[in-house]
Amino acid sequence: MSHKVIFDTDPGVDDAMALYFALAHPAIDVVGITTTFGNVKVPQATANALYLTRLAGFDIPVAEGGALPLMKTPGTPPGFIHGDDGLGNLPSRLAINATPLAISAAEYIVQMARGYPGEISIVAVGPLINLALALKLEPTLPQLIKEVVLMAGTIIEPGNVSPVAEANVWNDPHAADWVFTAGWKLAMVGLDVTHRVVMPSIYFEKLAQHHQHHPALATLLHAVNFYSDFHEKARPELGHACYGHDILAFVYLVAPELFETQVGTVRVQLEGMGNGQTMLDRLGHLVYAEPGWEPNRPVTTVCMQVDAGQCVQLIEQVLETSWLRTPLLA
Amino acid sequence: MSHKVIFDTDPGVDDAMALYFALAHPAIDVVGITTTFGNVKVPQATANALYLTRLAGFDIPVAEGGALPLMKTPGTPPGFIHGDDGLGNLPSRLAINATPLAISAAEYIVQMARGYPGEISIVAVGPLINLALALKLEPTLPQLIKEVVLMAGTIIEPGNVSPVAEANVWNDPHAADWVFTAGWKLAMVGLDVTHRVVMPSIYFEKLAQHHQHHPALATLLHAVNFYSDFHEKARPELGHACYGHDILAFVYLVAPELFETQVGTVRVQLEGMGNGQTMLDRLGHLVYAEPGWEPNRPVTTVCMQVDAGQCVQLIEQVLETSWLRTPLLA
Repeated sequence: MSHKVIFDTDPGVDDAMALYFALAHPAIDVVGITTTFGNVKVPQATANALYLTRLAGFDIPVAEGGALPLMKTPGTPPGFIHGDDGLGNLPSRLAINATPLAISAAEYIVQMARGYPGEISIVAVGPLINLALALKLEPTLPQLIKEVVLMAGTIIEPGNVSPVAEANVWNDPHAADWVFTAGWKLAMVGLDVTHRVVMPSIYFEKLAQHHQHHPALATLLHAVNFYSDFHEKARPELGHACYGHDILAFVYLVAPELFETQVGTVRVQLEGMGNGQTMLDRLGHLVYAEPGWEPNRPVTTVCMQVDAGQCVQLIEQVLETSWLRTPLLA
Repeated sequence: MSHKVIFDTDPGVDDAMALYFALAHPAIDVVGITTTFGNVKVPQATANALYLTRLAGFDIPVAEGGALPLMKTPGTPPGFIHGDDGLGNLPSRLAINATPLAISAAEYIVQMARGYPGEISIVAVGPLINLALALKLEPTLPQLIKEVVLMAGTIIEPGNVSPVAEANVWNDPHAADWVFTAGWKLAMVGLDVTHRVVMPSIYFEKLAQHHQHHPALATLLHAVNFYSDFHEKARPELGHACYGHDILAFVYLVAPELFETQVGTVRVQLEGMGNGQTMLDRLGHLVYAEPGWEPNRPVTTVCMQVDAGQCVQLIEQVLETSWLRTPLLA
């Protein structure tokens, strides 16, 4: 079974890993990319999406997305994590000749959903402004989309921007709450599983060698090394390595059997010190003393545990196939 | 080592269990009781504290506490859990002749703390209005009190009044946040451990027999049966039994070695659907993108796991000693 996917992304190092996994996987057809702010500002995200695809030899349409959160004041992209350019501060870039589509990310999502009803999956790995705006444009979107997989949130694992909040949701909590309550087939791949899957930078070095230092993989290696420097400093116990994060959303799409999940209503905290926290109604709840919680809300399939060894093996197998094409340079 | 304890309580069935464990334990000296709203309204809590102590033959001073939360609108006591009278709707009560102190709970706490600096521990198992008001009366209270143990909150375990909130904290989140940030030696015994310790009602039946149906234990058995009816309906897998909840706060006081703990800043969510949630900064946090979280806040020792078997054994051993006295009837 092949998955026609719109990839909603803010590349971002782990976004780049995820994109290349998707391009390499035989059952994933990335029909389009929509960009969002988060790891970088949105023009940089768009430039990176175009660059990464063209460098790998793929002419995939890219639609630029929302530059700002739905309601909250935007934060500053974490240049110390992904680099100021989102790809570990590349020393130089090859010239490509590509421009984004003339329509917005939200318009593109709605157009594709209407054009291929029931066929399109969305894998979204950044703040969720584009999905929120697409829902606003087309309220029946949940019925037109086959499946949505998010890299977002955390339930039991501590947060990565506050003790309880994960960065993508925290960056645009109102958009996320809209997405979690929209009523589509929805899976959440959050820190509960992405923090279990650690990718050593040495692997990306071997991968680049395996592919005769194709410029796409040389670029990915540079980015991963920068990203792993940050991880090693923050979490020395990981070694020179990084979390899988966004790539896990695609792994879930093609191999959901590697995850243990729990199904329940997910809501997002929109205020206070818990701002941006994802809250899962794990008991399908017995008592609802707090206003706002109510039964019969749409549910999300939440990844709670993962077979990390099998994940890493799958990622390595897929990326080692002969998927790379001649770069589409200017 | 003996613990001079002020017991802050809203009896409540598990409060009654906790009180009798404290009275029975040779190393716990309950010097006074302060009452709070929660399981019942505060006049009922005061009446129950007086009744339970006098029935067991103990002439312990009782100071009536706050009737309302610090800021939020009060809820309705859950009569279906503890009975409208807090003790499983007792069919009748023996006549006792006892009145509460003329000073408030907060005043009593401050008076005792000043009178016995460094000697008094507080075990608080209800909403925390009295501790908040005592902190307001005497800002140096944290230096005068030896130790505070709370039955409150939850970190990983789902909540019991919402998917994320525990009842005591949710009933008065502002008071709880004040207590968690006051800077005393503080331990939190929450649902993470109290949901692991299940007390079968049959045990309380045997206990009443063991003590020749002393009226205090006949009363406790009636209350526990009502409480276990509720638990069995909500959680059939427990059988006719109830969670230990409040009693675990005293178990922690005398046997902290039965608990695995984590030390970190605890804050309370004060708004939105996460209202009343306790949030623990489990990583001593690497990144604080959300305003409000800051390093160098006072920390709480949070019980994360418990040796449930040893707990139940300790509770049974203590309650089976010859601790009961002749009831102090009118």
